[in-house]
Amino acid sequence: MARILYDLYGRDEQLRFSPYCWRVRMALAHKGLDVELKPWRFQQKDAIAFANTDKVPVLCDGDQVVADSFSIMGYLDDAYPDTPSVLGSGASYQRALLFSHYVDRQVSPALLRIVALDLLTAIHPDDRDYFRATREARFGCTLEEFHSPEQGQTLLHKALAPVRAVLRTSPFLDGETPGGADYLLFGSIMWANVVSLQAPVIEEAMIDDWFRRLCAFYDGMGNHALTVRDLVDKQGA
Amino acid sequence: MARILYDLYGRDEQLRFSPYCWRVRMALAHKGLDVELKPWRFQQKDAIAFANTDKVPVLCDGDQVVADSFSIMGYLDDAYPDTPSVLGSGASYQRALLFSHYVDRQVSPALLRIVALDLLTAIHPDDRDYFRATREARFGCTLEEFHSPEQGQTLLHKALAPVRAVLRTSPFLDGETPGGADYLLFGSIMWANVVSLQAPVIEEAMIDDWFRRLCAFYDGMGNHALTVRDLVDKQGA
Repeated sequence: MARILYDLYGRDEQLRFSPYCWRVRMALAHKGLDVELKPWRFQQKDAIAFANTDKVPVLCDGDQVVADSFSIMGYLDDAYPDTPSVLGSGASYQRALLFSHYVDRQVSPALLRIVALDLLTAIHPDDRDYFRATREARFGCTLEEFHSPEQGQTLLHKALAPVRAVLRTSPFLDGETPGGADYLLFGSIMWANVVSLQAPVIEEAMIDDWFRRLCAFYDGMGNHALTVRDLVDKQGA
Repeated sequence: MARILYDLYGRDEQLRFSPYCWRVRMALAHKGLDVELKPWRFQQKDAIAFANTDKVPVLCDGDQVVADSFSIMGYLDDAYPDTPSVLGSGASYQRALLFSHYVDRQVSPALLRIVALDLLTAIHPDDRDYFRATREARFGCTLEEFHSPEQGQTLLHKALAPVRAVLRTSPFLDGETPGGADYLLFGSIMWANVVSLQAPVIEEAMIDDWFRRLCAFYDGMGNHALTVRDLVDKQGA
């Protein structure tokens, strides 16, 4: 049976921007595992209800169904022990989990401040009312009030301090070659990069260099990603 | 030859509060390695000049001399491969390094806001002028202005979010038993705990429980630590 990943798309079916789906795509590529990407939109809850979730990524691997990006990465390590490990086991796995929570709680919220309104442009027109309503309820303010790139960049600079320190001594967070910690952060930066109307989101050369090195991996998968800027050039905002 | 660790002391020779020395003491205990603690004070630079540093910890292990807590932890893993690993290797080591930078850049600065003036009470009277002068130069304000426990607690709560998330699913950061990631954070909290005039520094039960579990390890090494509160009860502030 085929391996299928439900992957969020936006105003164009090729515009793929979920940070969590990007994590999984990099993990699959790290292991040399093919996957068929199944385009999915925010409100297509019924299409993934079989996985007992309302969010992507959802991986169907033969008869195995796994939701949640970190769980999928762990599943892939368990199910394919002969492929290069992504999260590792024991303390290594735990430290990846710690970093995952750090990215979700400090890096992604900073990025969200930078691209909140850009996101609205990136998502499918049919999803925009849904997106605005759910996010404004979560933020407690309008998207326009939440959107503050300057404040976001200040938060991002602070949040990335430990990342900056590690990249001073090694080309990737996980060492000489990229691994799970790199993919966890890469997903969030790729998300912002795909939806940002004004690239680059990352203003620091050292971290931007790391991001571009990762974009070039796995046949340049990241480099080939369609961004909202490509669409706006053709279609207008 | 004996194994010797130069360890910072304060107003009492038994008051040991360096976060970096505590990391190393826990790492040594994790490996079942004995050590002789050599009391050292801020201004005794000459006593450790042989290690090409002006800061503790400095470990002398036979004819090996190692400075910097993270380097010492890595040295111990290399030199004693048959003992339980503290930092691990490869991605595991890298992720510990990432967490170390996170603790130094986010957790410790928050704790410092909480105990800045308490620290002045904890250190040796002969070191107080030196401490005030060097720290006020670094902070760009007086210790009294820098000291702001309420702001520190807010920063600490935010900084500990990833830690909180991991401790929801495992008793220690490194999993079922403590490891390097636990000791990296423990050192900073122990530092604040030893010098704080108003314990507990950690107001959240889940994280305080984790700290107390660690204090009970290795014959209750953390529980037996003298705190400035023990001294003030006897001597006054």
